[in-house]
Amino acid sequence: MHAVDLILKKRDGGELTPEEIAFLVTGAAKKSIPPEQLSAWLMAAFLRGLSIAEVNTLTTAMRYSGEVLDRGGLGRSTVDKHSTGGVGDSTSFLVAPIAAAAGLAVPMISGRALGHTGGTLDKLESIPGYRTQLSLREARRVLDVYGVTMIGQTSDLVPADRVLYDLRDRTGTVESPWLICASIMSKKLAEGLNGLVLDVKTGSGAFLKDIASSRLLAALMVDIGERSGTRTAALLTSMDQPLGRFAGNWVEIWEALDVLRNERSSITEDLRDLSLTLAGWMIYLGGKAESVDESRVIAEARLLDGTALDIFTRMVEAQGGDTQVFADPGSFHTPKFRRQFCAPQSGFLTHMDCGKIGWAVQRLGAGRERAGQPVSAHAGLEMLAKLGSQVETGQPLCNLFADDEALFAEPERLLTEAIEIRPEPAPIPALVGEIITAENKNQFLESPPRT
Amino acid sequence: MHAVDLILKKRDGGELTPEEIAFLVTGAAKKSIPPEQLSAWLMAAFLRGLSIAEVNTLTTAMRYSGEVLDRGGLGRSTVDKHSTGGVGDSTSFLVAPIAAAAGLAVPMISGRALGHTGGTLDKLESIPGYRTQLSLREARRVLDVYGVTMIGQTSDLVPADRVLYDLRDRTGTVESPWLICASIMSKKLAEGLNGLVLDVKTGSGAFLKDIASSRLLAALMVDIGERSGTRTAALLTSMDQPLGRFAGNWVEIWEALDVLRNERSSITEDLRDLSLTLAGWMIYLGGKAESVDESRVIAEARLLDGTALDIFTRMVEAQGGDTQVFADPGSFHTPKFRRQFCAPQSGFLTHMDCGKIGWAVQRLGAGRERAGQPVSAHAGLEMLAKLGSQVETGQPLCNLFADDEALFAEPERLLTEAIEIRPEPAPIPALVGEIITAENKNQFLESPPRT
Repeated sequence: MHAVDLILKKRDGGELTPEEIAFLVTGAAKKSIPPEQLSAWLMAAFLRGLSIAEVNTLTTAMRYSGEVLDRGGLGRSTVDKHSTGGVGDSTSFLVAPIAAAAGLAVPMISGRALGHTGGTLDKLESIPGYRTQLSLREARRVLDVYGVTMIGQTSDLVPADRVLYDLRDRTGTVESPWLICASIMSKKLAEGLNGLVLDVKTGSGAFLKDIASSRLLAALMVDIGERSGTRTAALLTSMDQPLGRFAGNWVEIWEALDVLRNERSSITEDLRDLSLTLAGWMIYLGGKAESVDESRVIAEARLLDGTALDIFTRMVEAQGGDTQVFADPGSFHTPKFRRQFCAPQSGFLTHMDCGKIGWAVQRLGAGRERAGQPVSAHAGLEMLAKLGSQVETGQPLCNLFADDEALFAEPERLLTEAIEIRPEPAPIPALVGEIITAENKNQFLESPPRT
Repeated sequence: MHAVDLILKKRDGGELTPEEIAFLVTGAAKKSIPPEQLSAWLMAAFLRGLSIAEVNTLTTAMRYSGEVLDRGGLGRSTVDKHSTGGVGDSTSFLVAPIAAAAGLAVPMISGRALGHTGGTLDKLESIPGYRTQLSLREARRVLDVYGVTMIGQTSDLVPADRVLYDLRDRTGTVESPWLICASIMSKKLAEGLNGLVLDVKTGSGAFLKDIASSRLLAALMVDIGERSGTRTAALLTSMDQPLGRFAGNWVEIWEALDVLRNERSSITEDLRDLSLTLAGWMIYLGGKAESVDESRVIAEARLLDGTALDIFTRMVEAQGGDTQVFADPGSFHTPKFRRQFCAPQSGFLTHMDCGKIGWAVQRLGAGRERAGQPVSAHAGLEMLAKLGSQVETGQPLCNLFADDEALFAEPERLLTEAIEIRPEPAPIPALVGEIITAENKNQFLESPPRT
C-alpha cells in the first residue's frame, strides 16, 4: 500500500477501506509516513469530508495506536466529560468531583490551551506543586482512592493523535467535524469509559462556526461512542460569551472553588448551571440514576453538601498540589498589572465575539502561540457584565490582568471589536441547546456537508 | 506572515495576494516553510483552484526564485516547445533542430520520465557520451554555435519548482491545471523566450483526463506567456495512442533519426506530422514567417533538405555524444529479450488506454518508480498497428523489449486491458485539436472548474 494512493483516493472524493485507514494511522504513529503526505491527506479529508464508516475506523485505529485503559476493574462505573474548547470554561473542576462524589470514577485526561481556548492542564498547573504528568499507574491509584484524577495525555495513550494533532494545528486542518471527532473520541474511548458526556460548543467562541457542523460533530461522537459500548450524549451549548466570571488560568481555579463552596453570584450562575447539567448527564450515563432530572438533583446535592469540594481538594493534594492557597484564592497569583475595559457607550450588551475575547485572553499571556510555550498563571480576564446587561458609558465591563503593561494594547483592541452595545436589548442564546443521544443521533448523521 | 494563515485562506476558497504567494514561493525555495505546510497548501490549491491572478503571481515568483536566462543577445529569436507529457513522444528531437535550421535559437531544458510518461533527458542519455548536465555557460556556447541545445534543469534555474514538484509527486497534487501551469511556465519563461509552443496532451494518455481542464491549462499558459512578453500558443493534441513507432529511450532516438532522414512509413506519419505542425508554430511565433501555413512549409523544407538532421547530429557531438551509433540505430542498444503481443481476436483497433500503455513501457524498464532510479536504454515498445487498423486473431500488435524476461508479465497484462478490438471501426480522435492563442484564450479562462 502506498500513502500517495490513499491521498489520491480521498482527494477525488473516494471512501477509504478500514485497511487503508489503519495503514495511515499506523504510519502516523510509527512515523513511517512522512508529515507532508499525512498533511496532504488531512487537507483532502478536511475538504472532501469522511463517511461515518471512515470516521469510525479512523477513531478505532487511533484509539488502539497505543495503550488503552481497562473499562471496569475499579468497582465503579467510569465516566468523563469532554468539551470541544471554550473561553473561561472551568466546568471540569466542578463536574469531575461532583460525579466522583456520586460514586463514579472519573479518569479525566485533558489538554492545554490551544488558539483562543483555554486548557485544563494549564489551569491545574497554576496550583503550586500540582503534577499533571502522572504515569498511568499513579493516576490509577489516585482514581482508586478519590474516584477522580485529572492528568495530561501520556505518551503511551493514542500516539497517532499526538502526531496528527500537531500536524493539524500547523496545516490549517483543525476545524473539521470528522477529524475533531476522531481526535476526541480516540482519546476518550482509550480511557475505557462506561459513560461520556460531550460539551459541543456553538456560537461565536466555538471552533466550528456553523450549527450544522456542530450537530454533525455531536452526532458522529455519539454514534462512535455508542458503537464502542460507551453510553454517550452530546450537549450543544452556547459559547457566545465567556463562561462564569473569569477566563485565564489561576482565576478559573479561583472561580471553581467559589462555586464548589456554594458562594453564588449572578455572574457565575451560567458556570454553575452548565456544570450541574453536565454532571447530571455523567451520573445518568454512568448508571447512577433512572433519569437525567433525578441525576441533576443528585449532582446538586453533592455540590451543596460539600463532598465535591472535599474530593477536589483531596485529589489536588494527592497529585502534589498545595491547597493552602485555596484558603484565599484572590490573594494568590495576583497580577502585576490590571486595566479596566469600560463601555464606550450606553445601552445593552447584545452580542460578543467570544472568539476575539478568547484571543484577548491568550494575548494577555494566559494562552500560547506555539506548542511548548509557557503561560502566565496570573494573566486573565474578569467579566463584570454579561450578555443582556444594561450598561452606562464608562461603566467597567471587564478587568484585564497581565504580567507586563505592554500586553494590554492588543487585548483592548480585540475587546473593542468584540463587544457590541446597542440601544435595544436582543435575545440571548440559550445556555444549553440541542441534546444529541443514541435516540436522535441518526437524524443529524444524514448528508454531511461537503465542499 | 504565517504559512498557516495562507493555508487557511486557500482552504476556505480565498484569493491570495501577490505578497502572500511570494512568501510561499520564497519559503519553498529557501526551505523556510516546512514540507507539511507546503503540501497542505498544495492540496487546498488543488481542490479549491487558483484565480488567474494567483497563477500569474505564482508563476512569476517561481520564475524569479533563481537565475534566469537573458532574452536576446544571441542575434537570433529564441523559441521552445514544451509538452505536458506523452507516451512515445519524440517530437523534441525533430522540432528543436528544425527550428534551429530555420534560423531560430532553441534553448530546450527538459525533464525525466515521470509516471507513465517518457522523459527527453532519459532518451538523450541513451546516446553514449551525451551530457545533459551542462552549465548555463556551456549550454550558451552550444546554442550560439548550433542554434540549439538540449539540457536538463540546472540547480540555479527555478529552485522553487524543484521543491514543489517533488512534493506534488508524493502528495497527490500533480494533475492540477493551475499548478501544472505554474510549474511549466516558470521554467520556460526563465529561459528568456521570444516564442513558445505548448503541446497540451489530451485523451487517454494525458495527465489531465478531462477536456475542460486541458483547455483551461492551455489558456492559462498562453495568458501568462503573453503577459510576460513571450508569444505563446497551445495546441491540444491527441494522446490516445503512442506517437510514432516506438516508446522507450534509445528506440525513440532511432525513430527520430528515421524521420530526420526522411525514411517515411505509415506508422511514424503521426510523429512527423505533429513535429512539423509544432515546428511550424515555433517558426511563426519566433517571427520567421507571416503565417502558420508559411512556417510549416519552411519547417518541412528544413526537414527535407537534411539541415535539421545535420544540426541535430552536430549538437549531439558538441554535447559529448558519439554519433557513430547513428549509422545503424537498429543494431545498437539491442534488447536482451523480446516478446510479441498479439491480437486476442479479429476486428478493428477502436480504442487504446494510452495511460496503461505508458505504464507498460515504464514497467518494461524504460521509466522509473521513484526519482533517481536508473532507466534501461534498451527497454521499450514497438507499435506494429495503430488505431483504426483491421487486425486478425494472433496478428502481432506490439513488440516488447526488456533486459529481463520477468519484466514482461505486468506489461502484457496492462496491454491486454489497454487495447480494445471491436467488430466495427470507430472514429479516431484528430491528432491536433483546438489551438489556443492570444486571440481566443479568454473564452477558455472563464469560470475555472471548482470542486
